[in-house]
Amino acid sequence: MASCTVVYTTTTQSLNKNCSFSSKSHLGFHHQKHLVFYKRSSSKRGSPCVITCGAAAGDQTLVIGLAADSGCGKSTFMRRLTSVFGGRAEPPKGGNPDSNTLISDTTTVICLDDYHSLDRTGRKEKGVTALDPRANDFDLMYEQVKAIKDGIAVQKPIYNHVTGLLDPPELIKPPKILVIEGLHPMFDSRVRELLDFSIYLDISNEVKFAWKIQRDMAERGHSLESIKASIEARKPDFDAFIDPQKQYADAVIEVLPTQLIADDNEGKVLRVRLIQKEGVKHFSPVYLFDEGSTISWVPCGRKLTCSYPGIKFSYGPETYYGHEVSVVEMDGQFDRLDELIYIESHLSNLSSKFYGEVTQQMLKHSDFPGSNNGTGLFQTIIGLKIRDLYEQIVASRVEAPVGAAKA
Amino acid sequence: MASCTVVYTTTTQSLNKNCSFSSKSHLGFHHQKHLVFYKRSSSKRGSPCVITCGAAAGDQTLVIGLAADSGCGKSTFMRRLTSVFGGRAEPPKGGNPDSNTLISDTTTVICLDDYHSLDRTGRKEKGVTALDPRANDFDLMYEQVKAIKDGIAVQKPIYNHVTGLLDPPELIKPPKILVIEGLHPMFDSRVRELLDFSIYLDISNEVKFAWKIQRDMAERGHSLESIKASIEARKPDFDAFIDPQKQYADAVIEVLPTQLIADDNEGKVLRVRLIQKEGVKHFSPVYLFDEGSTISWVPCGRKLTCSYPGIKFSYGPETYYGHEVSVVEMDGQFDRLDELIYIESHLSNLSSKFYGEVTQQMLKHSDFPGSNNGTGLFQTIIGLKIRDLYEQIVASRVEAPVGAAKA
Repeated sequence: MASCTVVYTTTTQSLNKNCSFSSKSHLGFHHQKHLVFYKRSSSKRGSPCVITCGAAAGDQTLVIGLAADSGCGKSTFMRRLTSVFGGRAEPPKGGNPDSNTLISDTTTVICLDDYHSLDRTGRKEKGVTALDPRANDFDLMYEQVKAIKDGIAVQKPIYNHVTGLLDPPELIKPPKILVIEGLHPMFDSRVRELLDFSIYLDISNEVKFAWKIQRDMAERGHSLESIKASIEARKPDFDAFIDPQKQYADAVIEVLPTQLIADDNEGKVLRVRLIQKEGVKHFSPVYLFDEGSTISWVPCGRKLTCSYPGIKFSYGPETYYGHEVSVVEMDGQFDRLDELIYIESHLSNLSSKFYGEVTQQMLKHSDFPGSNNGTGLFQTIIGLKIRDLYEQIVASRVEAPVGAAKA
Repeated sequence: MASCTVVYTTTTQSLNKNCSFSSKSHLGFHHQKHLVFYKRSSSKRGSPCVITCGAAAGDQTLVIGLAADSGCGKSTFMRRLTSVFGGRAEPPKGGNPDSNTLISDTTTVICLDDYHSLDRTGRKEKGVTALDPRANDFDLMYEQVKAIKDGIAVQKPIYNHVTGLLDPPELIKPPKILVIEGLHPMFDSRVRELLDFSIYLDISNEVKFAWKIQRDMAERGHSLESIKASIEARKPDFDAFIDPQKQYADAVIEVLPTQLIADDNEGKVLRVRLIQKEGVKHFSPVYLFDEGSTISWVPCGRKLTCSYPGIKFSYGPETYYGHEVSVVEMDGQFDRLDELIYIESHLSNLSSKFYGEVTQQMLKHSDFPGSNNGTGLFQTIIGLKIRDLYEQIVASRVEAPVGAAKA
C-alpha cells in the first residue's frame, strides 16, 4: 500500500468531519498546509488517492463545465459570467504570472489545459495533439474537481502556454462556483458526473475559419495556406474527441454564418443558436413569446428600425442528439441600445433580477467580442442562468439540509 | 325645374330640422308616408334630387361596405357580423319573400344587386354582365345610402335573384348600422365617401375554382368544362370592375390555398390573410405578440397538439396598394376548442368584451362555412372591430356633439 498524505488547511478550508479516506497509491503530494492532489506529469500511472467527504449543506461548490475549441471565445464568456456575479476576475495573487486561472469573489475559472500530461515537446515526440486524450490526465482532473466540489483545496498543475511546459502547481481553494473550461470538460464520464451545468461553444467550421483568418493572418501575419493546414491538421482529433461532448451539454451556443446576407463568407454577421436542454433541474430555458411553440420574429419594423441586414430571431422545440431541447436563435446584429433593450423585453425566462439587466451587462462590456450579436447575448443569458441555478441550489440546500433529507 | 316630393315619416323617422332641400330633376317618387328616393329602372337619367341634412349627434347611421364576388361567403360574413351585435337577422316582415335584405335590432344588410339597372333579360340583350357598371345604378345607390346615413328612410328597389327581374321596392329605415354588401360598394367614389368602414373579401382564383367545383359540380351537376367557362367569362369584368375596389378597403380578407400541404389543390385547407389598413380612425389592427414587427408562429408544439397539417400564423407590416397595412395570416385549420382558445389568447387588439369572446362566437356558429379556419376567425374578428368602431363613434358623438365641435 502506497502512502497518501493529507494535510488539513488551517487558513480557509478544512476537511469536513465526516470524510472517509482511503489510500490506494503514492500519487499524493503535499504542499504547505493544504490538502493537495498532484500527480507529476512524469510519475507512473496508478490508482488514485480518494477522499470521500459529505460537504456541509450550502457549502458544496457548484461545478460548471465549458467546452470549446481553443480560440473560440471561452475567455470572453468567462469574463461575462464572472461579471454577472459582480467583482473582477484576476489571476491568483503573487502566483505564476502565466497561470491560466481566474479568480473572483464567487467564481474560480480553471483551464483544463492545466491537466495536459504531455508538454509541447512531449506531444511532438509522441505525435499527439493537445486534443488527444493521451495528452491529458483525466484521472487527476477528476480527482481534483471532485475534491474542490467536496470543499477540499487542491494543488493544480499549470500548463504554461507561453513556454509549452508544465509549471509547478498552484493552490486552488474551493470557490462558490468552479468553472472548468477547456477542451475536455465533458469527455471523461467521471468528470461529467460532477458537473452541475455544462455548456458547449460550438463554432461552425466556416466561422472558425473566418475568425482564424482575421486573427492569424491579419494580426499575426500567417499565410492563408498555413491557416488552412493548421485547421485541417486539428480536424480529425477535434471531430473524434471534442465535438462529441456537445451531446452532453445542458446548453450549446452554436455560431453559424448569417442567413440574412446571401452567400456571406465574411463571418462578421453571425447566426447564433442557444440550444437549451429540457428537463434540467433548476434550469428553465429562455423563450420567445409563447413557450413550446415555433416562432420566427423580425423585430425591425414599425417600432424598431435596424440597419442592414437587420435582426431575425427564431424559437422552437427541437431534438438534439436524442434530447428534447428549446432553441432560441438570433441572426444579425444590433447597433444601438434601443435595439438591445427591445429584444430583451421580448424574451421570457431570462432569470434577470431587474428589467434591462441583460442590456446593462452587455453595455458594461461593449468592448468584448460579440457584444453586438447573439454570442454576447446568449453568453450573458447563460451567465444569468448559472447565477439562478446557483441561487436555487443554495436555497434548496438551506430548505432541505443533508440531515433533514435523510430523516 | 322638375318636381321632387319629400314626405316626412310620422312613424319612426323624421327629417332633421336643419335639412336643406334642392329639387333638380323629376327623379322623386313617394310611397306611403316615408321619404323615398326611387328611380324606376326605365326612367331617363338626370340630375338627382338632393336633400342635405345635418343628422343629430348619435343618430347618424354607420355605413359599412362589404365587397366580394357572388358566392364568396358574404352572407356567412353578414350572419357572423349580425351575431356579434346580438339578435337574429331576418328578411323584412310581411315583405317580398325574395327580398335580399336582412334586418336585426342593430344592423340592416342590403344587397347591392338591388341596384341593378338592368334585369337578367336586359343584361342579355345588351351583352353586359352584372359586374358591369352599365348594369348598375350608382346614382340611386349613392342617393339612397346617403339618405339612410342622414337618417332618412328610402324605398329601395329589389332585384329578384329567383326571377332575374326588378321587383317593386321595399322600405329601408335607417338602422344603427347599415351594411351594403355586393359587387360594387367601393366602385363609385361618392358611395365610397359614405363608408365608415369597408371590407373586401378576396378569394383567390384557385380557391374560387375549388369552391365552384364543389358547389356547381357536386351539388348542381354542372360539368367541369362549363364551370371553367363560366369563371373565364366573368374574369375580364371581374378584373376590370370588382377587383380594383380592394385598394380602397380598410380590411381585406384574402383566401388562398394552403402552403402547409405541398401542391394542394383541394381547396379544403386554406391560408387566410387579414389585411388591415393602418391609420383608419377608430380601427386599431389586430396583431400577434409584438405590434409592428414580423412574426411567424406555429402554435402546435409542446403545449398545443394539432392534427395534420397543423396551423401556422404570420403577422407583419406590409404595403398594399401603396397603403401601410398590418397583415395577420392563418394557414391551416383547428379541430378542437382548445386550439381555438389558445390562438385567441395570443392575438392582441381583438376588441372583444371578455376573454374568449371570439371562440364563443365561432362555436355559436360552428355550422357556418369556414368556422374551423381563418375565414371564420377573421370574419368574427372584423365583426368585433365593427362593433368597436360603432361604439367609439357613438361615444365620440356624445362627447363632442355637432354644435360643440363648431364652437
